[in-house]
Amino acid sequence: MTATLRIEAALEAAVARAEVSGAPPRLAAALRHALFPGGARVRPHLCLAVAAACGDDQPMLSDAAAAAVELLHCASLVHDDLPCFDDAATRRGQPSVHAAFGEPLAVLAGDALIVMAFDILSRSAGGAYARLPGLLNTITRGVGMPTGIVAGQAWESEPDPMVGPYHRAKTGALFVASVAAGAIAADADPSPWRDLGERLGEAYQVADDLADAFSDAADCGKPVGRDAALNRPSAVAELGLRGAYDRLQDLVRDAVSAIPDCKGAKGLRELVRAQAVRLAPKHLAQSAA
Amino acid sequence: MTATLRIEAALEAAVARAEVSGAPPRLAAALRHALFPGGARVRPHLCLAVAAACGDDQPMLSDAAAAAVELLHCASLVHDDLPCFDDAATRRGQPSVHAAFGEPLAVLAGDALIVMAFDILSRSAGGAYARLPGLLNTITRGVGMPTGIVAGQAWESEPDPMVGPYHRAKTGALFVASVAAGAIAADADPSPWRDLGERLGEAYQVADDLADAFSDAADCGKPVGRDAALNRPSAVAELGLRGAYDRLQDLVRDAVSAIPDCKGAKGLRELVRAQAVRLAPKHLAQSAA
Repeated sequence: MTATLRIEAALEAAVARAEVSGAPPRLAAALRHALFPGGARVRPHLCLAVAAACGDDQPMLSDAAAAAVELLHCASLVHDDLPCFDDAATRRGQPSVHAAFGEPLAVLAGDALIVMAFDILSRSAGGAYARLPGLLNTITRGVGMPTGIVAGQAWESEPDPMVGPYHRAKTGALFVASVAAGAIAADADPSPWRDLGERLGEAYQVADDLADAFSDAADCGKPVGRDAALNRPSAVAELGLRGAYDRLQDLVRDAVSAIPDCKGAKGLRELVRAQAVRLAPKHLAQSAA
Repeated sequence: MTATLRIEAALEAAVARAEVSGAPPRLAAALRHALFPGGARVRPHLCLAVAAACGDDQPMLSDAAAAAVELLHCASLVHDDLPCFDDAATRRGQPSVHAAFGEPLAVLAGDALIVMAFDILSRSAGGAYARLPGLLNTITRGVGMPTGIVAGQAWESEPDPMVGPYHRAKTGALFVASVAAGAIAADADPSPWRDLGERLGEAYQVADDLADAFSDAADCGKPVGRDAALNRPSAVAELGLRGAYDRLQDLVRDAVSAIPDCKGAKGLRELVRAQAVRLAPKHLAQSAA
């Protein structure tokens, strides 16, 4: 089965468990809306690619890890779009969850997606439950306090934000968790993989800043210009357009170099380079070429 | 160590992990505010009492299970108090989290508390990681979709709520998870304990409905009269004041009878009866006596 099919099947199974008789149907519909159609599913693809590079001897567990990081990413999107944060009416070109289902169900959908991530891990360990504590710990570090994406979002409510911890937590943390979870699910040491996650996380943050500053909303599938409007730290504000674009290219090169020597290294390098092409706003890539 | 000390120490250790350099300090403060001072800590006390009745051979794991259910309960209080739900400015006699820290940090505090619950479990399995899948599964069932407290809250946003699933999910589910988690943490079969959790969950829902209808806000530590104002299903609306009070007494008797024969049964019966006295609004108990 391709990685794409594995990821979609694991997410579909998770959301189907919420769509049973006796469950509140509008919350179930909100969960499906938050998950499908997906974006590029970058984090779960990375997770599975690292698991494959490490032998992937428990594919049910690596599928669960991949689905868990995507569920947690989608939870953060649902909550970040709320009126008290980005107040975004659209996401991935469709109405955001609160725009479609109201604010109460958007809060609850985010909560339910977080719980689903841990539920799917608990169901998928099979005989490999000795890997569960490490997997849970890696994933909670990427999501919660003090350094995960929840902490990253919280820095935007601090009167005096620390820019380094903010950027590492806001995007990098879940990328690091994605690659490390892929290694742990395959019973490998996650430490050689962390650098790849960190560089990719930084690259995504710069790409997101570029998209926010220079895309239009139709390209982006969500409102743009939010960083400047909300006075958030941004690579574009710091380095300018060209500087941010060059930084993105450097980070992608660093990410490619950070891939440890392993059986699947070649495929992984291709995956990272392909993502980099997808990341750069098209007109910037053309003008740089 | 007493159960109270074990619970407070486990929660203190969890929140201290969020209060480190490099973490957003206002979110860390919001987490402490959400957890301390606590309410009666009924769910973690139940969890530890059941673990004790089952031998409690891994006290670090039962402490973690008890703290996890309390963290998840507090997360639900923080989110339920938000303006889009109960819009409660007070909780346990102090400002609610969003009243004290703003809505963005209240959303994030709830999210972080959910993640902390799973983090604490991942840290505390020791050599008993074979118990983790069951523990995680029990706890996610009590919290998430389709039957946990998130589903219970979501029923209030449904145009046509199912009253039975609503009440079971809104309160009962986390009580069932609390008793079952206590058993699993001590390597015992959780199934004989579920009835106790269900009866106690129902008793708490009726007590909460009575408090909402007939307490004043100072006694209760939070706004009252919300069920009638929001037209929510309530035992008081259904059975009247006296009927709801009698129902509470019946449920407590049923809960006491549901305690399985075991070494700690006597202590558990006393714990349940003591909670029942605490539960009934004082002037109702006096007028019934």
